[in-house]
Amino acid sequence: MYKAIITVTLKESVLDPQGVAVKGSLHSLGFTTVQDVRIGKQLEVTIDTAEREQAQQQTEEFCQKLLANPVIENYRYQLEEMN
Amino acid sequence: MYKAIITVTLKESVLDPQGVAVKGSLHSLGFTTVQDVRIGKQLEVTIDTAEREQAQQQTEEFCQKLLANPVIENYRYQLEEMN
Repeated sequence: MYKAIITVTLKESVLDPQGVAVKGSLHSLGFTTVQDVRIGKQLEVTIDTAEREQAQQQTEEFCQKLLANPVIENYRYQLEEMN
Repeated sequence: MYKAIITVTLKESVLDPQGVAVKGSLHSLGFTTVQDVRIGKQLEVTIDTAEREQAQQQTEEFCQKLLANPVIENYRYQLEEMN
């Protein structure tokens, strides 16, 4: 069994309205040292396979097919074997 | 300047409807080895300070005050010095 920990973030060139909103809230709470906020998703996906290669290949596939929009998002992941 | 990379996830005991939906979509795409999906947020916050202690203290504060709901969410973070 493997766990894929996937992080999906907006590309640098893409405006992050959620991040801008959180930044504004932090400033209104007095955290004026905050310069920038970027928000992304983290997904933990448990995959029932004994083979690391299969887990990796599947993770690549479902990132490209479903979890990340290649036009505006980047993804990265790490695989952990679960005992 | 420091960057706080904050991960906010639902507590284990809390149902994750988004995760259930993504799991269903992955199954319909043929990824039947997927056993579980948990979805969280990742925030990258840039803090304009030269002192690591101040960056850490502020990160703790804004996680508790704004970014994580202590009733249903956990948070963890790491600090990176930016050059």
